[in-house]
Amino acid sequence: MNYKIIHGVLLLPSPDGYTTEKKTIYIEGNRISRITDPMEDASFSVDAPSKEKSFETIDASGKLIIPGLINMHTHVYMTIMRNYADDLPFDKWLFQKVMPVEDHLPRECAYWGSLLGLIEMIQTGTSCFVDMHMYHEQSPKAASTAGLRAYIGRGLVGEDLYDDGRRFREAIEEKEKYANDLLSFVLSPHAVYTCSRKLLSQVTVEAQKHGMLKQIHLSESKNEVENCLKENGITPVELLQQIGFLDQETILAHCVHLRGDDIGILARTGASVVTNPASNCKLGNGFAPIGQIRQAGINICLGTDGAASNNSLNLFREMGLLTMIHKGISEDPTMAPAPFIIDSVTRNAAAALGREGELGVIAENALADLVFLDMNSVSLFPANNPLSALCYSANGSEVDSLMVNGRFLMRKREMLTIDTERVYYEVGKIIDSQL
Amino acid sequence: MNYKIIHGVLLLPSPDGYTTEKKTIYIEGNRISRITDPMEDASFSVDAPSKEKSFETIDASGKLIIPGLINMHTHVYMTIMRNYADDLPFDKWLFQKVMPVEDHLPRECAYWGSLLGLIEMIQTGTSCFVDMHMYHEQSPKAASTAGLRAYIGRGLVGEDLYDDGRRFREAIEEKEKYANDLLSFVLSPHAVYTCSRKLLSQVTVEAQKHGMLKQIHLSESKNEVENCLKENGITPVELLQQIGFLDQETILAHCVHLRGDDIGILARTGASVVTNPASNCKLGNGFAPIGQIRQAGINICLGTDGAASNNSLNLFREMGLLTMIHKGISEDPTMAPAPFIIDSVTRNAAAALGREGELGVIAENALADLVFLDMNSVSLFPANNPLSALCYSANGSEVDSLMVNGRFLMRKREMLTIDTERVYYEVGKIIDSQL
Repeated sequence: MNYKIIHGVLLLPSPDGYTTEKKTIYIEGNRISRITDPMEDASFSVDAPSKEKSFETIDASGKLIIPGLINMHTHVYMTIMRNYADDLPFDKWLFQKVMPVEDHLPRECAYWGSLLGLIEMIQTGTSCFVDMHMYHEQSPKAASTAGLRAYIGRGLVGEDLYDDGRRFREAIEEKEKYANDLLSFVLSPHAVYTCSRKLLSQVTVEAQKHGMLKQIHLSESKNEVENCLKENGITPVELLQQIGFLDQETILAHCVHLRGDDIGILARTGASVVTNPASNCKLGNGFAPIGQIRQAGINICLGTDGAASNNSLNLFREMGLLTMIHKGISEDPTMAPAPFIIDSVTRNAAAALGREGELGVIAENALADLVFLDMNSVSLFPANNPLSALCYSANGSEVDSLMVNGRFLMRKREMLTIDTERVYYEVGKIIDSQL
Repeated sequence: MNYKIIHGVLLLPSPDGYTTEKKTIYIEGNRISRITDPMEDASFSVDAPSKEKSFETIDASGKLIIPGLINMHTHVYMTIMRNYADDLPFDKWLFQKVMPVEDHLPRECAYWGSLLGLIEMIQTGTSCFVDMHMYHEQSPKAASTAGLRAYIGRGLVGEDLYDDGRRFREAIEEKEKYANDLLSFVLSPHAVYTCSRKLLSQVTVEAQKHGMLKQIHLSESKNEVENCLKENGITPVELLQQIGFLDQETILAHCVHLRGDDIGILARTGASVVTNPASNCKLGNGFAPIGQIRQAGINICLGTDGAASNNSLNLFREMGLLTMIHKGISEDPTMAPAPFIIDSVTRNAAAALGREGELGVIAENALADLVFLDMNSVSLFPANNPLSALCYSANGSEVDSLMVNGRFLMRKREMLTIDTERVYYEVGKIIDSQL
């Protein structure tokens, strides 16, 4: 077992949101075992692990330590398409640019594309992500290489989960082969317009059987909702409710175009909503009604979506955008305040993943997923209010170190698990040959 | 005279927007004297400056060189109030937080606050800014220390420019004392609700007399417009038009709440609009109607406003926000495309300042204000489309070097004109004693 003792200023939960306090954290293996007042020399000798254990003391002065951020919706393999298809109408973007690339891309390209995305995530403080992919095994392989925590799902489409069964078989194979402490697997039907009712209800059954979370893209565009109304006489939300798909183990990406009682339905089922403001703006889908979703008591998380529609996987950028958009729409500067924005990438995400108290929080018994921010970055100086700093002035470049599961993936900006030069080289080759 | 020869990839204007090309730039003193195809060894000996001149060859491989960005509206002294007053109703923000600080702040604090803002600007690629301040001489002193290009104005308020004359006297004194190659001065009445008609028309006359640009905050909040309509029966835009204030030498910050024929009036007078999306969202003022303003042919520039209402002076953050908001509002992904966003911080800004061809562009005879971006930053990789990269994935941390007027202010991320440790120390002292 490895022991680490960290002295630093922590972002901690408080009754009215968050507070920052100077503390000492003890880490045993992959968990925070204790948090104490700043350790004094006297207590050090008493509390120090015995000599046969390996331990390390980390001086984090000048740093703010926050929980690892959780990106609740992305497609990391798409990072090779960063800045590849922009300022285009949605149909052109999808059918003339993105899909032709996806269709002929050799599978291993997705591994390098995913690693490129994970470099960006690590450098901007993301410790955990929820991914939907379409290239067997590449996303879990990349997450394993990087050492990030991940919830991964093979995108499912079609009429029947078992007849068109390759994708489902691969989804289960991935789970059996790769599931471990860091990697979990999520059943991931793509959307109501690409999956039949039958498939969606088969997924519901399989999720219960395997104890898996479910994720789906939902009510992302006006077209999706209007076509669903035309074909089924009900909204995509109502359709999922009829099937019994919606429950506390369900993660719903987008939810931009909600109609009628959609918000009420989501609130009653306990499903979590993942808003992706950059992607929704960039593809012209508009703004999710975050004010009403929040008021209904629905759990709201934040995602970047893939780099083909954002074009960044930097959650700091996304946090700023989320608060700005919702203050702007409501013309109310108190909307989407800093504690809510921080919740959306920490505690709310942990709740959606069923890991409250373990992820998204610095607390005793929580997993040791920590971001160290350099408070001497000019964007965070002066430190009048660290909560505001995280939402309103940070741009992600302040991340000095990232620890996941008690292990540093980046330390003092040095990448420790990914050979970035190799990734750039491989991605460069793919761009030259495939795009 | 200093000579520099730079080999690198340049962002250059093209008939349909921008293009990137590998070129060699020759800089003589503070201007670009020639741009040629990538220099070959043979031509080098022919074209090299003679031996008695000092010259330097700069290898910018792996960098993208773009024009220095222009922040068209800010208050740099406010950077000490970064993250100081957030998530508050506008009146509380202004009257209970910002103004009490401003009222008792010793003048020299504004110098250190301004320098802090200029550190952020330099590190994120801003070579030129338009400032409105309220502490005599501090903003021009800071700009001189930093070596940035600036257009600076003492904020003017009140009934009569000459009776309440201290501020106007100081504005002219600053111009006489500090105006030079890099520093210009702008007459800066604060707003229609803090300046009388008389003062606004006096400013109009003085601006013509001194050949100075004018700037003003205009139609920023609903309250401003509604009160103006109540008191004067006309909108703030109509009021300025009646006075004869609006012309091509006028810079209008905000323009969020435009009514009736306001957009038509602005178009006919040739005034420039500076949109400040972060500030407008953050204070709950809403979204400026950029689509309509642009359609009317009005020159649109971009500003960050001060750090008390943003809370960042990073133009990359602002560029991303501008395009996202306007794609989101219009539900049209082709709105506010990358070339327009880049124009708003380069060519359009130069036009507003009457410096077309000199600023905001890499061209022969233009001033040598250049940003060097590290294209191996993960946020810019792969380089599928550099224009998109600037708007959709850059966060400002990619800026490797900044040259203003032929001189490096930052090189390979080393700050060359500002003692950042001293600035942090002095700002820290101010925070402890004044906030």
